[in-house]
Amino acid sequence: MEEDQSPGLGLVAETPGLKHGNGVSNSSEDPGSAGDGISSLEKPLLKRSNTLTSSHLAMVGAKVSHIESLDYEIIENDLFKHDWRSRSNVEVLQYIFLKWSLAFLVGLLTGVIASLINLAIENISGLKMLHMVHLVREKRYWAGFFYFSGFNFVLTFIAAVLCVVFAPTAAGPGIPEIKAYLNGVDTPNMFGAPQLIVKIIGSICAVSSGLDLGKEGPLVHIGACLANLLSQGGSGRFRLRWRWLRYFNNDRDRRDLITCGASSGVCAAFRSPVGGVLFALEEVATWWRSALLWRTFFSTATVVVVLRGFIEVCRGGRCGLFGEGGLIIFDVSDVTVRYRLGDLLLVTLVGVIGGVLGALYNHVLHMVLRLYNLINDKGRMAKLALALAVCVFTSAGLYVLPFAVPCTPCDPAFGAACPATGRSGNFKQFNCPAGQYNDLATLLHATNVDATRNIFSTGTPGEFRLDSLLIFFAIYCVLGLFTFGIAVPSGLFLPIILMSGSMRMTVSLCVIFLELTNNLLLLPMTMFVLLIAKTVGDAFNPSIYEIILDLKGLPFLEPKPEPWMKDLTVGELAAAKPRTISLQVVEKVSTVLEVLQNTGHNGFPVVDRPRPGLSELHGLVLRSHLVAVLRKRWFLAEKRRTEEWEARERFSSVELADKNCKIDDLELTPEELEMYVDLHPFTNTTPYTVVETMSVAKAVVLFRSVALRHMLIMPKYQGPEISPLVGILTRQDLRAHNILGAFPHLAKKSKTH
Amino acid sequence: MEEDQSPGLGLVAETPGLKHGNGVSNSSEDPGSAGDGISSLEKPLLKRSNTLTSSHLAMVGAKVSHIESLDYEIIENDLFKHDWRSRSNVEVLQYIFLKWSLAFLVGLLTGVIASLINLAIENISGLKMLHMVHLVREKRYWAGFFYFSGFNFVLTFIAAVLCVVFAPTAAGPGIPEIKAYLNGVDTPNMFGAPQLIVKIIGSICAVSSGLDLGKEGPLVHIGACLANLLSQGGSGRFRLRWRWLRYFNNDRDRRDLITCGASSGVCAAFRSPVGGVLFALEEVATWWRSALLWRTFFSTATVVVVLRGFIEVCRGGRCGLFGEGGLIIFDVSDVTVRYRLGDLLLVTLVGVIGGVLGALYNHVLHMVLRLYNLINDKGRMAKLALALAVCVFTSAGLYVLPFAVPCTPCDPAFGAACPATGRSGNFKQFNCPAGQYNDLATLLHATNVDATRNIFSTGTPGEFRLDSLLIFFAIYCVLGLFTFGIAVPSGLFLPIILMSGSMRMTVSLCVIFLELTNNLLLLPMTMFVLLIAKTVGDAFNPSIYEIILDLKGLPFLEPKPEPWMKDLTVGELAAAKPRTISLQVVEKVSTVLEVLQNTGHNGFPVVDRPRPGLSELHGLVLRSHLVAVLRKRWFLAEKRRTEEWEARERFSSVELADKNCKIDDLELTPEELEMYVDLHPFTNTTPYTVVETMSVAKAVVLFRSVALRHMLIMPKYQGPEISPLVGILTRQDLRAHNILGAFPHLAKKSKTH
Repeated sequence: MEEDQSPGLGLVAETPGLKHGNGVSNSSEDPGSAGDGISSLEKPLLKRSNTLTSSHLAMVGAKVSHIESLDYEIIENDLFKHDWRSRSNVEVLQYIFLKWSLAFLVGLLTGVIASLINLAIENISGLKMLHMVHLVREKRYWAGFFYFSGFNFVLTFIAAVLCVVFAPTAAGPGIPEIKAYLNGVDTPNMFGAPQLIVKIIGSICAVSSGLDLGKEGPLVHIGACLANLLSQGGSGRFRLRWRWLRYFNNDRDRRDLITCGASSGVCAAFRSPVGGVLFALEEVATWWRSALLWRTFFSTATVVVVLRGFIEVCRGGRCGLFGEGGLIIFDVSDVTVRYRLGDLLLVTLVGVIGGVLGALYNHVLHMVLRLYNLINDKGRMAKLALALAVCVFTSAGLYVLPFAVPCTPCDPAFGAACPATGRSGNFKQFNCPAGQYNDLATLLHATNVDATRNIFSTGTPGEFRLDSLLIFFAIYCVLGLFTFGIAVPSGLFLPIILMSGSMRMTVSLCVIFLELTNNLLLLPMTMFVLLIAKTVGDAFNPSIYEIILDLKGLPFLEPKPEPWMKDLTVGELAAAKPRTISLQVVEKVSTVLEVLQNTGHNGFPVVDRPRPGLSELHGLVLRSHLVAVLRKRWFLAEKRRTEEWEARERFSSVELADKNCKIDDLELTPEELEMYVDLHPFTNTTPYTVVETMSVAKAVVLFRSVALRHMLIMPKYQGPEISPLVGILTRQDLRAHNILGAFPHLAKKSKTH
Repeated sequence: MEEDQSPGLGLVAETPGLKHGNGVSNSSEDPGSAGDGISSLEKPLLKRSNTLTSSHLAMVGAKVSHIESLDYEIIENDLFKHDWRSRSNVEVLQYIFLKWSLAFLVGLLTGVIASLINLAIENISGLKMLHMVHLVREKRYWAGFFYFSGFNFVLTFIAAVLCVVFAPTAAGPGIPEIKAYLNGVDTPNMFGAPQLIVKIIGSICAVSSGLDLGKEGPLVHIGACLANLLSQGGSGRFRLRWRWLRYFNNDRDRRDLITCGASSGVCAAFRSPVGGVLFALEEVATWWRSALLWRTFFSTATVVVVLRGFIEVCRGGRCGLFGEGGLIIFDVSDVTVRYRLGDLLLVTLVGVIGGVLGALYNHVLHMVLRLYNLINDKGRMAKLALALAVCVFTSAGLYVLPFAVPCTPCDPAFGAACPATGRSGNFKQFNCPAGQYNDLATLLHATNVDATRNIFSTGTPGEFRLDSLLIFFAIYCVLGLFTFGIAVPSGLFLPIILMSGSMRMTVSLCVIFLELTNNLLLLPMTMFVLLIAKTVGDAFNPSIYEIILDLKGLPFLEPKPEPWMKDLTVGELAAAKPRTISLQVVEKVSTVLEVLQNTGHNGFPVVDRPRPGLSELHGLVLRSHLVAVLRKRWFLAEKRRTEEWEARERFSSVELADKNCKIDDLELTPEELEMYVDLHPFTNTTPYTVVETMSVAKAVVLFRSVALRHMLIMPKYQGPEISPLVGILTRQDLRAHNILGAFPHLAKKSKTH
């Protein structure tokens, strides 16, 4: 991309004493020109290079998109500073009130939508099952099969078409993208209205169609979408133009609200308010404040109240086939648990097995997802065909397998409950003669939630034979592997939840489990199982979400820097990058335009030489602000510094917060191109800086804990002939994978070490 | 303190364009000379000044002590860098293994000690009660009174003497100091062996003596002490000199372990593993990593297993009067709760009342504590007398009051359980005739835990009359206010725990409540009550712990910067301070000695001018490292830069980690004083820096989230005549109170605003 730059674009920072970068590619933030993006479509993994270059491309909904970081930093420029100072107490109160109201609304809506989704799923799949069982009871086995498969086919078709046509990003669980968002990565088209609607309908259809997936992941995504839409006052053209909402037109408040949304989603999925908060905490640990803890907690409390309200309403039978179900509460609260020392050994064993199985699961899923990516790249029809193929396969399996197991005679102790011919009940008669039940049908012909509840229900010991349970478990794991990557909203389902070996989230899983079972006595053992499984799993491969993040190419910053990062300085890193493009504080319009057109950088250092021998790193100006200035044509005839009020008269801080302006259609006259722009009012004069000798390890910790987008590198020595800036680092530059590409010897060292 | 400085102590940084500091006092970190510390003893509050000065003095255990910050930053100097690089894989594994082992040990020991404390309290106070009730039954009322008061007097005497003589810092709950520690403030003599022992014995005596205090706070402190001692391999002379432990000889790992200890303490106090983790989280939110979350969780899981083990053992009656008690588990898990919309109003009302009462409680407690501080300042005897006076007053109240209420006839439905003449049981006969019970005696003559359990026990509705409950509640609140500040280990007890209006910790309290009651259905309402109470309370005054932190003068950094901090730059702040003392990279021994002797600063900027016109901020050197160099007499005859191996030959990174070296007894010959010291190998070349134009608000966020001790301020302009350093800021300089002292107009502005 070096050839795109015209020479003399302002000051060029050089690192004294360090070798120059070879300038093969542009590794600053987000190149706007997509030239090199297309070829990478051929590769299943998005990032492969030998120099410190970074692809800003990610597989978002099976499409390649440009991704950006969030502007989480407090921007201290003249205009924003004036905005704070002029905020009255009333406005501050409005802001606080709105913050809590939005948190409440997020909880409320998430709760309502989750309840409606549950209701829809229970009723649709209930109706389907009832009629299918009816056909089987009449021995019309083929009719039953075609009815069952056809019904599932139509549902899957709806879900997949919606996903493929309207919102490709709504496929999958959405949790990796939320994880990335909370880490500071702004995945495009992820949290909009189409995603929300497709996710809701698609999730209902996909779960009802008997596909082996959960509604848990999608619910988390739904919560996040709701939060995002609320913070913007709606979507696109239908946006509410409420004055108060302008306070939320920044990445900082939006991210806080999306944290609330994600927690609410987890809470709605498992009816686990504390688990929801902890989930956000385990994922968001990058940047956390106590105030956010309370607000998140408030949202999840609202969700729980809404869910309870729905259950109260439905208890009277007013919700069709939706009984008390749809929300998993295992019935083990009356189990009294006593431990012996020997149990600890057993628990350790279970943990180890869980860890190994989880790691294996991740490994196989990784391979399946890579294969699916290749298929999905072939186009929309391929995606659709894949989804439908999986649906047919699943339907056939679910229908045929119960015929393969023998019937079990009812234990008289169960009384009239056995066999059950209706939709619900623990003992499905299915194809069996009177007085007997089919235990595999009981497990397979129920929603996941019901199946799980059946397995764990106390009071019915010996209900399921061991081989049926093993078949069920095996089917679910295998089907789950092949279902996860298809183009419908999907979440990994419960058997995996119990395996912290796959997800590696110990604390929140543990609390969710506690809140699901409502039995405190199981807690210590659960804690140990989960911790051991996580540790064992970590020894093999990363968590499933990290694998997906990696597959999609989302630049997630790990919490812990790699050991070899201590041996590399940020100065060396900057030297491996192409030269930094800086602007002068009062810059020619033509130069600004050229820089904007020819680079995709999102932040430009602004430097100045007030008088000979004196240099100044004035700060950092954002692309969006430069675009706003050009669009407003706020130009100066001569090269001079403006007064503060001049910019204030023309620009409001609200206008500057708009990030969606483009310059493609901007046409400037030759006279205007010869004029000047004063960048003083727009420059963030206090960007975070580090000295060039700082180790990358230390810089990564800073970058992550303060949630930065750009980090400026200052020279170690200061003198008249030395530029005040060595370089600029972004999230991409600090990722281990990208650094190892440019410094392969570090990889070797870290292995032999 | 300006006059202590000899002129020409190296480079003096000046801020161009900003007014100079008036140099009235020294506001860098930790002045070593205590000259001005004594006079502040007269004032109840420790910090009162008009310029940007900061007292590094805090009331630690009713004594004034010098406090320091923790060195949490990664120090990148030659020696430490070499140490990382030379660490083998085996050593890394040793380190990880040790980290988890220590977390396990902390949990194990905290669990065992907590169980033993419970056992001791239940048995001692049980024996006391049995004999007292026996005397009352024989109508020997005066004998009963003297026996009861005398027993309590002796117990209080033991606790108070231990506290006053051996470990004044063991008085009180210890939680504010832990909160401060996790915020980065190293309170001296807080986590040592004397504190641990006094806390254990004192806590047993104080709770057994019937004083109105809880063992919860002390248990948290005990966990933290254990963690600290384990990380150091023991205390003082008896320290274990295990090679592996050298990895833990740094503030970073020690702080992590103390986090585990504090969580374990909370968990042991309430048998609430998740609550313990969240407590640490709500308090420690400054700096948090997922890895720490798991380790903390591991510790609390261990505690719970130990506690359960003890309960299993004691269930057989092998623990004397210790039954299943001592650990609060309210018996409400079989309560089915259904909400109506009207309940929300009631809940809101309860929350508001809780908030108002909590705020009132904080206000009164604040006044009582200030009064007690005045008394305690009079000396040891005064402290002892105060403690004993409170004890006598409490004993009299507890003994006499039950006589004032009428007896209640037993409901036949309760059967043989009423009246109870032994120690335990819900219906104490006390002074009543056969077939009747004294409900107030039932409440007052039990340990706090038993009393609470009695109140909340289901199955005995109507056991307590409303007036008895109100008397009980009033007595407890009033006694609690007067007991809290005396010189025994004490914690705020349960009525307050339920009032998040006082402590303002919503999430962890909520989870603790959940784990205490083992009833998930109560959770949403609890969440709302706690949130409302917190919000209402916050409108009146800060939390009780913050009030205590403030009284003690501990420099706690608030998570949220004040709004007016946006209007002040760090450059202006630095200008209000005395001039910064810098050292040259190769400095004369006499200068280094002078600087160390005449200032109490703990970090010194190191600057250099490699050649004319070129300046360099080389980094920051710590006092402890300078002391180590002087003590080792690593001097150079001529002014030259040494090679890296020269320092490595003489200094190990373990030696440098020792912070307790002093220079008072160091005697250098005149020849040595004329020699030079090369500071290159010891200087942290990558301290965190900010530009002088950064607002204090932004700087505070950085300071807190990266957990800094020193923050260097760089000049905005760079040129030959400009010093590479504007100043240095520490925790004290960034505290709102200290800043407002130096910039009173900001305070006015923030009020009128």
